[in-house]
Amino acid sequence: MHTMIVYVHVKQEYLEAFIQACKLNHEASVLESGNRRFDVLQSDEDSARLVLYEAYATATDAAAHKNTAHYRLWRDTVAEMMVEPRQGTPYQGLFPNT
Amino acid sequence: MHTMIVYVHVKQEYLEAFIQACKLNHEASVLESGNRRFDVLQSDEDSARLVLYEAYATATDAAAHKNTAHYRLWRDTVAEMMVEPRQGTPYQGLFPNT
Repeated sequence: MHTMIVYVHVKQEYLEAFIQACKLNHEASVLESGNRRFDVLQSDEDSARLVLYEAYATATDAAAHKNTAHYRLWRDTVAEMMVEPRQGTPYQGLFPNT
Repeated sequence: MHTMIVYVHVKQEYLEAFIQACKLNHEASVLESGNRRFDVLQSDEDSARLVLYEAYATATDAAAHKNTAHYRLWRDTVAEMMVEPRQGTPYQGLFPNT
């Protein structure tokens, strides 16, 4: 399982709009055949800190996500909503491993 | 969904044993009725950096995990395997939200 933890710091005035954009991205992404996780998380300690936890069966599936219409719409919609560029950290999913 | 991202820095000499202990904890934890995720991740950039991504339907379910035999066995087994204490960051799971 090919996974990515993406850390986002959202401008407070865009928080509701950012979450709505992520909801649409989540709903479409979980329908991708290679998708295993597309979880949208909000920090308990700072509501402007969100995490996207994305997992795909293979690196090819993860790359294909970047070519979907819903990813591109999300990317463009949220471009100005972040305090700083989002940071993604790649991980190998050991368990589960499919 | 009540989630936690737990960051672990494992002593190199214990890496294989740590992963094995996490495998057993994963296998038992995903059988808990309130469990939604128990993913064990290994950094692509530093194999000694692991992440446990745990999600439970409710905070009560998450707390109940700490009382299971498999959690306690894992906790005691890995106690000496880490470079420093593990760090957990709590998040509210927005999507999915069950």
